[in-house]
Amino acid sequence: MTEPIHDLARIGHAELLTPKPDESLRFFVDVLGMEAEAREGGSVYLRAWSPEALERRVAAVEATGLGQGWIDGDVGHGPAYRFTDPDGHLFELYYEAERYSPPEQLRPAWKNQPQRYVGRGVAVKRLDHVNVLAADVRANRVFAQHVLGYRLYERIELDDGSETGAWLSLSIAAHELIYVADAYGANGRLHHLAFWVDTREECLRAADLFVDNDVYIEAAPSKHAVAAGFFVYAYEPGGNRVEVTTGGYFVYDPDFEPVVWTEHERARGQFWGVKTIESFHTYGTPDVSPGR
Amino acid sequence: MTEPIHDLARIGHAELLTPKPDESLRFFVDVLGMEAEAREGGSVYLRAWSPEALERRVAAVEATGLGQGWIDGDVGHGPAYRFTDPDGHLFELYYEAERYSPPEQLRPAWKNQPQRYVGRGVAVKRLDHVNVLAADVRANRVFAQHVLGYRLYERIELDDGSETGAWLSLSIAAHELIYVADAYGANGRLHHLAFWVDTREECLRAADLFVDNDVYIEAAPSKHAVAAGFFVYAYEPGGNRVEVTTGGYFVYDPDFEPVVWTEHERARGQFWGVKTIESFHTYGTPDVSPGR
Amino acid sequence: MTEPIHDLARIGHAELLTPKPDESLRFFVDVLGMEAEAREGGSVYLRAWSPEALERRVAAVEATGLGQGWIDGDVGHGPAYRFTDPDGHLFELYYEAERYSPPEQLRPAWKNQPQRYVGRGVAVKRLDHVNVLAADVRANRVFAQHVLGYRLYERIELDDGSETGAWLSLSIAAHELIYVADAYGANGRLHHLAFWVDTREECLRAADLFVDNDVYIEAAPSKHAVAAGFFVYAYEPGGNRVEVTTGGYFVYDPDFEPVVWTEHERARGQFWGVKTIESFHTYGTPDVSPGR
Amino acid sequence: MTEPIHDLARIGHAELLTPKPDESLRFFVDVLGMEAEAREGGSVYLRAWSPEALERRVAAVEATGLGQGWIDGDVGHGPAYRFTDPDGHLFELYYEAERYSPPEQLRPAWKNQPQRYVGRGVAVKRLDHVNVLAADVRANRVFAQHVLGYRLYERIELDDGSETGAWLSLSIAAHELIYVADAYGANGRLHHLAFWVDTREECLRAADLFVDNDVYIEAAPSKHAVAAGFFVYAYEPGGNRVEVTTGGYFVYDPDFEPVVWTEHERARGQFWGVKTIESFHTYGTPDVSPGR
Repeated sequence: MTEPIHDLARIGHAELLTPKPDESLRFFVDVLGMEAEAREGGSVYLRAWSPEALERRVAAVEATGLGQGWIDGDVGHGPAYRFTDPDGHLFELYYEAERYSPPEQLRPAWKNQPQRYVGRGVAVKRLDHVNVLAADVRANRVFAQHVLGYRLYERIELDDGSETGAWLSLSIAAHELIYVADAYGANGRLHHLAFWVDTREECLRAADLFVDNDVYIEAAPSKHAVAAGFFVYAYEPGGNRVEVTTGGYFVYDPDFEPVVWTEHERARGQFWGVKTIESFHTYGTPDVSPGR
Repeated sequence: MTEPIHDLARIGHAELLTPKPDESLRFFVDVLGMEAEAREGGSVYLRAWSPEALERRVAAVEATGLGQGWIDGDVGHGPAYRFTDPDGHLFELYYEAERYSPPEQLRPAWKNQPQRYVGRGVAVKRLDHVNVLAADVRANRVFAQHVLGYRLYERIELDDGSETGAWLSLSIAAHELIYVADAYGANGRLHHLAFWVDTREECLRAADLFVDNDVYIEAAPSKHAVAAGFFVYAYEPGGNRVEVTTGGYFVYDPDFEPVVWTEHERARGQFWGVKTIESFHTYGTPDVSPGR
Repeated sequence: MTEPIHDLARIGHAELLTPKPDESLRFFVDVLGMEAEAREGGSVYLRAWSPEALERRVAAVEATGLGQGWIDGDVGHGPAYRFTDPDGHLFELYYEAERYSPPEQLRPAWKNQPQRYVGRGVAVKRLDHVNVLAADVRANRVFAQHVLGYRLYERIELDDGSETGAWLSLSIAAHELIYVADAYGANGRLHHLAFWVDTREECLRAADLFVDNDVYIEAAPSKHAVAAGFFVYAYEPGGNRVEVTTGGYFVYDPDFEPVVWTEHERARGQFWGVKTIESFHTYGTPDVSPGR
Repeated sequence: MTEPIHDLARIGHAELLTPKPDESLRFFVDVLGMEAEAREGGSVYLRAWSPEALERRVAAVEATGLGQGWIDGDVGHGPAYRFTDPDGHLFELYYEAERYSPPEQLRPAWKNQPQRYVGRGVAVKRLDHVNVLAADVRANRVFAQHVLGYRLYERIELDDGSETGAWLSLSIAAHELIYVADAYGANGRLHHLAFWVDTREECLRAADLFVDNDVYIEAAPSKHAVAAGFFVYAYEPGGNRVEVTTGGYFVYDPDFEPVVWTEHERARGQFWGVKTIESFHTYGTPDVSPGR
């Protein structure tokens, strides 16, 4: 029995590449209801629990040969160690971070709230999870578990033994990092970013807002079988898939046994029997589909 | 900068003392919708992440002089180390636990669900947190932080410097263990046990069920200012206060600064301005009020 | 400008034919959460506002030649006038009705509630609407409007001028009686009965209960474009389609202009873009499909 | 058995007097999420079902001696007959009305929706009911029933025989016009205007918006015993009480027996046992309290 690794706390933030930065910004601010702070890039940022924990994870990454070295701090955080997962997605590890302090007009009435509730658009609360595509799900899942310290809660294994999906977390939340098989065998692509709301009613309201803002809804509000989260999926103007999500379950048991789904079991569709739309299994960004 | 302690995973279960065991059982089964497994009582059970983590916590407890020694396993778990917090509440630390496997008639349609959803009564999902009264909140809060490894998220400090409430957690959930000042300066008493539902609508439905099952509602559904949880409070037939709760917030930041409420700030009442009913500040079990 | 007819108040109840009466009864009692009172039949019962209003409607029906004459009272209501709509569905008009008084164990805590809230199963509140199939939708819709006094709120007209759906109501509710084209040109068949719950959360919960009670879900919870109701559709053990519904809109305007949907507009799917499952357009009871 | 009157369809709109027109306008547009069209006055507008129905009601009002005569059309409606109820509140009866057609930027994606869902603020859907204070509730209630054709669904009668509240409706909705006893015996005052949202979650969200917009919440979200509506009450900047509401029940029975509450029964508080705040029983606008 090895002791679990508790070195990383969370995905601090994630960056999105978009060919239409202005339209994408308007979507995130006006439709999703977020505040704009700064823009850039293409990485997933992982925050360590302590400087010692950061050092331990950097050493573990370096031992895999996937490390790229330290970079100076950036907007909102201090020095970061850059590396890629086996599939080539860019990650950065850091510990030092600036505390966010809301500007005067966003100061909340109750000080334990992160900011004033303005109720604009969907009013998402935070980044909930990142779902990336990988040519080899198993290799990346094992890397996330053993090198980064993620816990595995669910995965899909086909009859031929290949792994097509893995749901990983640093906390009791059912998923924070997901690897799903890339239908084109491509590398480094994104499936979606998911943003949290507190209630299913807010997911339904998000769908109403998408309809009246001409946002393409790929999958209407419903409930996943895997991880049991409630969802609505849409494409932001830059083409990236975005989820508004809530629900799911919490894993409090130290020896929780990961759920392994068979090909047969996954053929049942989603929680309430809805068949998943085909594009959900094939589309990712950047788009590499033949028709493109 | 000390590294955080990550040795305890969760409150595995909690026991309740009741002068009316049959009526209380009926309440938990028929009204709250739980399944009966075994009964006994009066401890809070804390599960460690690993045998090594268990040993470290036992050593830390022993060093305080509050340890009582090991006891054999009990229903559902292996050997446990018994101790009290400074206020005298009984706790047990353990690692080994049996996995719960639902009986045939409770087998769920989806295997990542703990059991079939029968929808009976409130249909609470799990124990969410334990709120205990203490004559000296600060001493017990410091013990929970430094000896057990709890993180402190919120607390109340009066103008005279005394601490009257502390909200602690082992996870990202806003509270799992709460200490509140005992109005009578008594020791070892319970404020309430809180059970989780996924939606605020289920809290409202719980209140409807309480009304039509003659269960006394002490505080109708509303939202707390401290920790921002949504609640409804009732008394089970044995007199213990029970909460049905959801919402609250998640703490992902390693260096989250605990929120400290002043006496003035707490005079504003609850989140939407409701004044807290007096008994909420004074009543606990066993009841030691003068009128009793 | 003709004065509107205000003679009929509501669908008092509706009867369902099932080849599996015991299994169907268990479904309505245990899964939908209704109370059993009496069983029989196959009619839709329409209650008049007054004896004079009843006489006026009976005269109007007789003038169409579709009347069948008076029958004695039945469980819960007095003398009724029996007739069919042009498609052959059996209807009865009546005024006198017994008041339902809940038995002792179902007496509610608040006397303005129809009965105690026991929270069993889906806990539907009342019959909301009846959707029947018709070979000629337009003829039946006109009959409902001009002979019975229904108001028309929405309808679908294909490019070839044929009418394939009509949503009618006696009240401000968006629909109480719906006619939809029978895919097989058959007569007298049922599309579905719809039962009301107060919240969308209860529709989502109904779907969870269906999943864990092996009830076939034909269409998972989502929102209709036509009439904008929130729904989940399932088949009861006797094969009849049953809807659990809420939402929709209210029509307060006396001169509300019926919404007419074109073939092109209906090709957009449901409110959030979900394509309707094929069986929804073809299946009805009794089943007359070729494969049967 | 008299035939029921079905001449009036609805409260078309209601006017509000405010000493702070600009602040009040900002509240209704930015916080409640309404669109501004035109402003004026102080009446309740009742729309008839047909010109003949209008004539019948005008004749009935004239016979009481409370009529004031016809006025020309106004914004959105044609000629109206002005009168007061016995307590002196100004009413107008009309039939002709302009259809509202949303401007281009508010055109909805689905044409059966009144306008685009922008999701600004509380996003109330429509005026739900008007609650006015009266020195003599019974006299005004009888006037509303017999002269205007309202149906009575609930009322409160004290032990001394006086009537202190009456809930009336023109439709199946549990209340559209409410009379409540004026604590100061004054005339012509307003208790509150209530605006409809479709879900209880939207009432809870309204409370969050009020908190962060410095709007005074008089009564936090909860459920009424009388009429069983879900509510949150706030004061708009001009001092008028405003409710955001949903729920309640529907009355489909022609011979529904009005619920009569006794003094003893009303002492139980609201549906979940909350005691009503004192100001709810005394405050109205214009304010006539001694301290003013």
